[in-house]
Amino acid sequence: MTKYAIGVDFGTESGRAVLVDVANGREVATAVYPYLHGVIDEKLPDSTVLLEPDWALQDPEDYLRTFQTTIPAVLKESGIHPADVIGLGVDFTACTMLPVKADGKPLCLLPEFRNRPHAWVKLWKHHAAQPEADKINMTARQMKLGWLDRYGGKISSEWFFSKTLQILDEDPEIFQAADRLLEATDWVVWQLTGVETRNSCTAGYKALWSKREGFPDKSYFKALEPRLENVVDEKMTRTILPVGNRAGGLTEQAAVWTGLHPGTAVAIANVDAHVAVPAVGVTEPGSMVMIMGTSICHMVLGDEEHIVPGMCGYVEDGIIPGFFGYEAGQSCVGDHFAWFVEKCIPAEYEREAKQLGSDLHQLLEQKATKLKPGESGLLALDWWNGNRSVLVDVDLTGLLIGATLATKAEEIYRALIEATAFGTRVIVDTFQKNGVPIHELVACGGLPEKNKLLMQIYADVSGLPIKVSASKQTPALGSAMFGAVAAGKAAGGYDSIYDAARTMAHLKDEVYKPIPENQQVYEILFSEYLHLHDYFGRGENNVMKTLKKIKAEVKHVAG
Amino acid sequence: MTKYAIGVDFGTESGRAVLVDVANGREVATAVYPYLHGVIDEKLPDSTVLLEPDWALQDPEDYLRTFQTTIPAVLKESGIHPADVIGLGVDFTACTMLPVKADGKPLCLLPEFRNRPHAWVKLWKHHAAQPEADKINMTARQMKLGWLDRYGGKISSEWFFSKTLQILDEDPEIFQAADRLLEATDWVVWQLTGVETRNSCTAGYKALWSKREGFPDKSYFKALEPRLENVVDEKMTRTILPVGNRAGGLTEQAAVWTGLHPGTAVAIANVDAHVAVPAVGVTEPGSMVMIMGTSICHMVLGDEEHIVPGMCGYVEDGIIPGFFGYEAGQSCVGDHFAWFVEKCIPAEYEREAKQLGSDLHQLLEQKATKLKPGESGLLALDWWNGNRSVLVDVDLTGLLIGATLATKAEEIYRALIEATAFGTRVIVDTFQKNGVPIHELVACGGLPEKNKLLMQIYADVSGLPIKVSASKQTPALGSAMFGAVAAGKAAGGYDSIYDAARTMAHLKDEVYKPIPENQQVYEILFSEYLHLHDYFGRGENNVMKTLKKIKAEVKHVAG
Repeated sequence: MTKYAIGVDFGTESGRAVLVDVANGREVATAVYPYLHGVIDEKLPDSTVLLEPDWALQDPEDYLRTFQTTIPAVLKESGIHPADVIGLGVDFTACTMLPVKADGKPLCLLPEFRNRPHAWVKLWKHHAAQPEADKINMTARQMKLGWLDRYGGKISSEWFFSKTLQILDEDPEIFQAADRLLEATDWVVWQLTGVETRNSCTAGYKALWSKREGFPDKSYFKALEPRLENVVDEKMTRTILPVGNRAGGLTEQAAVWTGLHPGTAVAIANVDAHVAVPAVGVTEPGSMVMIMGTSICHMVLGDEEHIVPGMCGYVEDGIIPGFFGYEAGQSCVGDHFAWFVEKCIPAEYEREAKQLGSDLHQLLEQKATKLKPGESGLLALDWWNGNRSVLVDVDLTGLLIGATLATKAEEIYRALIEATAFGTRVIVDTFQKNGVPIHELVACGGLPEKNKLLMQIYADVSGLPIKVSASKQTPALGSAMFGAVAAGKAAGGYDSIYDAARTMAHLKDEVYKPIPENQQVYEILFSEYLHLHDYFGRGENNVMKTLKKIKAEVKHVAG
Repeated sequence: MTKYAIGVDFGTESGRAVLVDVANGREVATAVYPYLHGVIDEKLPDSTVLLEPDWALQDPEDYLRTFQTTIPAVLKESGIHPADVIGLGVDFTACTMLPVKADGKPLCLLPEFRNRPHAWVKLWKHHAAQPEADKINMTARQMKLGWLDRYGGKISSEWFFSKTLQILDEDPEIFQAADRLLEATDWVVWQLTGVETRNSCTAGYKALWSKREGFPDKSYFKALEPRLENVVDEKMTRTILPVGNRAGGLTEQAAVWTGLHPGTAVAIANVDAHVAVPAVGVTEPGSMVMIMGTSICHMVLGDEEHIVPGMCGYVEDGIIPGFFGYEAGQSCVGDHFAWFVEKCIPAEYEREAKQLGSDLHQLLEQKATKLKPGESGLLALDWWNGNRSVLVDVDLTGLLIGATLATKAEEIYRALIEATAFGTRVIVDTFQKNGVPIHELVACGGLPEKNKLLMQIYADVSGLPIKVSASKQTPALGSAMFGAVAAGKAAGGYDSIYDAARTMAHLKDEVYKPIPENQQVYEILFSEYLHLHDYFGRGENNVMKTLKKIKAEVKHVAG
């Protein structure tokens, strides 16, 4: 009897479910729910409360609506009987976190807190907690705490305790009212199972936890901010479950939402990028997995523990049990191109795209493909949304150099793609130099499907072959694999993620290989990129920060 | 009996005539002729001959058509009798030069040379003669020749001998066939008067001539290139007439073209920027005149001789007799904004402008006016078309820094305006530091009419008040003034340009004054601009040149 698992992938703008054949990974049905409130970055829904710059919130009800919409849809589309669905896994953006009551009720759903920005879900790309991140880093450095090294020497404003401290700093009443502070991915699993669990992946990568040392000591939290001293015991938990485990079974309530049977196995919560690794068949060191969408997450497994400067972190058993899972990231990739297409493309191109029946991205890709490396004379730093790895600095901004009066939109577009490829190259080189070998790239996510030019440029710039996931929804497939592991072999699933990966993960036949003559030009351009990267990114010229500071001051005075 | 003079101003895209009342400078009628072939920068007219990058040519017949069209038009519009027009002056872009036969026939009008790019007029912004400019500079430096100091230590690829040497280098047959090489401004005066004359302004500012020393020595030209040894004697002349003189009277042929009487006084040829100085009433040191259009020319008079690094040059009697006329320039101002509006403004803005019944420039100005200094977080280097003063380097390119995913078109637009204002500030400061005092700016040209925001930004950035010409066609007015001087007092004109300026030049009542709180922010931004200016412009990081070099190589291989 064929068995199935469902993976639900919570993205930045939408959630998607995929129903997968456990025997071979075949994706039988897919459904997408575009969040009603999407990314909340201007004002709170149904309210006049405006948000400060750099804020990015979400509505937790959008997550429940994702379950309620997409799972019934895949069941209906496939005609599969719910009894044949043996397991369910979820993955999420991270760190995406929220304050809730003891019963799991999000504070933003309580009428008294609905108009309080800090009551809502803080999305991964909420960047307003930089002062808090600075304080976390400074305090750890002053106390000479070794765990900072696990995170490339610096943690980001995106992370759990930066966001937590921002709530406390700016709205202590919300902090006080929150019985629990947790990752959205753990929260949705709680909603499915009725049991609050915490997963090792977000705890390790985003909340300073490690398998060997646990969370930082109370004395550290106290030094950071006296009211945080007991944050772990009061609002979190020290019980962290490894990914690959079973969180529980579906509640009656969740069964009604989804149309699945009560008791269906639910996997411990996971993160979109991390579930993608086994979903492209990577369960060994040497292959860097890139999840390429609005941003890029880079994942690589290592046999040994290495300190790699400027990565996002490494967590033992964080991706695949038995290995150190190393993570790095670029905060602005697809977002970059979307900004450019929305903000900088002249009407003439829109008309041309309409005539050709293509969209602007396709038109630009088509025009940019005709250019040779170096032909535009342009070079960019891909920091429109700051730099995650290896500089870990959200206050860095974008740079374009080389423009002339003959510069065309497709040239800038290509320069932006190249800039993100150089950004990946910096990450690959940094891993290599620090003892984490990489001999190939394996890509998944939306961009590899959409943009062949981009993939070729990444191969040319990195000098590495790039394989591509056969799945169009790799994280959802990965979550379904973890769902099958949560169900276990006895129920028709698997006993380990290795076993699941062997049969359920697939790559396309097509491989992007570096083209030697392109590599030659890109080597020169990359050395120029690196020069600018270090000059503007490592403190020699802090003009980007000065500009940001003036901007903030002027806005403050104007406001 | 009221007397009139006509000024004809040859711009980059069109020529315009203005008919002026000699008694008070009142502009009675104006006519514009948009050149049929405009700027020729892709392929030769009616031909398949393509041009290399950085080329910019013109058609000399467009200049004759300007006379044939605009002068009859202003006579007709005004109803003035041709007998009451006592003088005619012309001004031109410079260095805009061409090769002609002994009778004045341009080589490009001869069928055998029509398909040879070097036979055409090289427009001021023809930038393909950089190797030649480099050689001219290097040779002069090696020979320790003092005249280089008169030009800020470096001459530009735009200048007369750079362009001349390029013809010789790339098409020696054209060089050989040219009996005369001359500025277009002298050529059009020749067409009007039948007499070949050479003016002191272009000779001084563009062709290395000085009142005291004449042209560089033959030994220099020989060292530069043996075939150039006798270029002055063979294809030019050593007889240079000061501006303010009479070149001759209108020929029968030119009288037919224009509808004026034969024998009407014609002034010695002049340059658009230089005629503007008396036309805004400036005949003394201390006021810097800015002719603001596609580019900016900065003109200031000095009592003494000073070496100012990176200016375009100084010429004794070059603007106003009795003073040293100092010139500096920015090669990309209006062109900058035009590029941006054409290449980078999304369709949404086009629709909004249409709805409001305004054009895109107006819409952007309106949106950008709402921003405070520093609010965009952006900073640009205004080098989309190289840097004329003070770096004298056409291989520099544009830079934009500080972009984020929230950056909007109007913010970039304002940053580009600010960048050009910072460029002017560098020029003002350099003059001040080197003994040429400046206590006010006087603006004319198209931009001050069109863009109040820009004018205020220039006042805020420079910290100087800006007065504005009352004329919408200041150079044409200036040329008419020189026409009235060529006619002389006895004929109803003036005996000197001082006398003409006293009655014919007018300024608007409105003065742009620096706003202290804006100045404060701009001081910080300017210091950041200067830092980047020196870093990328003075050799510390030559990435712009590396990119240009790769671009040229790639295009060469591709071609």
